Amino acid sequence: MKAVILLSGGLDSSTVLYQAKADGCDCYTLSFDYQQRHRRELVAAAAIGSAAGVAGHQVVRFDLTQWGGSALTDLTIALPSDRSLTEMAQSIPITYVPARNTIFLSFALAYAETLAADRVYIGVNSLDYSGYPDCRPEYIAAMQTVFRLGTQQGVEGQATQIVAPLIQLKKTEIIQLGDRLGVPWEKTWSCYSGEAVACGVCDACRLRLAAFAELGQVDPIAYAT
Amino acid sequence: MKAVILLSGGLDSSTVLYQAKADGCDCYTLSFDYQQRHRRELVAAAAIGSAAGVAGHQVVRFDLTQWGGSALTDLTIALPSDRSLTEMAQSIPITYVPARNTIFLSFALAYAETLAADRVYIGVNSLDYSGYPDCRPEYIAAMQTVFRLGTQQGVEGQATQIVAPLIQLKKTEIIQLGDRLGVPWEKTWSCYSGEAVACGVCDACRLRLAAFAELGQVDPIAYAT
Repeated sequence: MKAVILLSGGLDSSTVLYQAKADGCDCYTLSFDYQQRHRRELVAAAAIGSAAGVAGHQVVRFDLTQWGGSALTDLTIALPSDRSLTEMAQSIPITYVPARNTIFLSFALAYAETLAADRVYIGVNSLDYSGYPDCRPEYIAAMQTVFRLGTQQGVEGQATQIVAPLIQLKKTEIIQLGDRLGVPWEKTWSCYSGEAVACGVCDACRLRLAAFAELGQVDPIAYAT
Repeated sequence: MKAVILLSGGLDSSTVLYQAKADGCDCYTLSFDYQQRHRRELVAAAAIGSAAGVAGHQVVRFDLTQWGGSALTDLTIALPSDRSLTEMAQSIPITYVPARNTIFLSFALAYAETLAADRVYIGVNSLDYSGYPDCRPEYIAAMQTVFRLGTQQGVEGQATQIVAPLIQLKKTEIIQLGDRLGVPWEKTWSCYSGEAVACGVCDACRLRLAAFAELGQVDPIAYAT
């Protein structure tokens, strides 16, 4: 069984890669350089792919700063920091990148069709979907319909299946799953800023730190604060 | 009313641009340099956008030759030539690019959301959908669901509408529509090869030449044969 795995290098997508391995897939990872704030996560993605022994790793490059619209693609928009988990859950954050998962899944579909892959794995989860429209189950179902109708494989009844194993999990449950699967957390990168060590105050750092703390575990990566 | 128009520089998308203008839209055109065989169509798209007086024109660059899978993105695959219209209608051609319209519509959705655009226009048509899965009405409907569920605008009940005005038209009807709208055919480019003049024998040239001939009109661009 062949699978394309969307791999950003963070906790979630790294766990998904190890889940795909555990499911018996030959894994082809796909990362994106969309001129996000930093390339640090791409280095992490390559390192994790290498550790997991993937069959292939592709980086697709394009430039979403052409039109901006997000704190991740427009350097004039400040990153939110020191927000509580409650605040994060209440609205679509400024780090939302318009249509990002749709773009990512579209490239995954193209790559999957050229590989004749059976599955595309994506690490969307229930924490994300409180704020991000393109992390909800009904959105994933809509993309599955696109996968079925929009490709030669789909027309031939062999549509690539979208697998979102984390969609109903909380961050703590994802870490517990990753622990069981042997995900090398020390190689992952979640921080939105691109410094030498993670900032510890952006939404991504705070979600991650809170989850490790709740489990009584120490996050093995270094933090500035 | 604001609209994003997917503009390749061929007959169909150029007609769609002029239709969007006639519909009263401020037009923002979007073209793609995906390392297709030649850049000639991008020159045509820019010229047509300029002639139409668009409010904005963006070219998104990425590289689909990374994984190939089509005669348009893999130079080792020969372009089909001298095929009859019947042959073209019977199967998915080797010029099919996996998931291309899904990728194009995903970027259009991202651009539309940052512009708060009301519409995305795409020039898929009934001739195409005999062979291309991602030109069929049911595929467009599936992408509309993605537009509704996958964006902040959609969640807020302001989903960008996909408009496919050519979807039920034959090539001759598209030319008749374009004639009424004043499309500058001499600036368009359809040929799959990237020579100084159109080859006249690839599928794209043959479809176009046959339609002009059927209408008793002369295609104003130059052909090698």
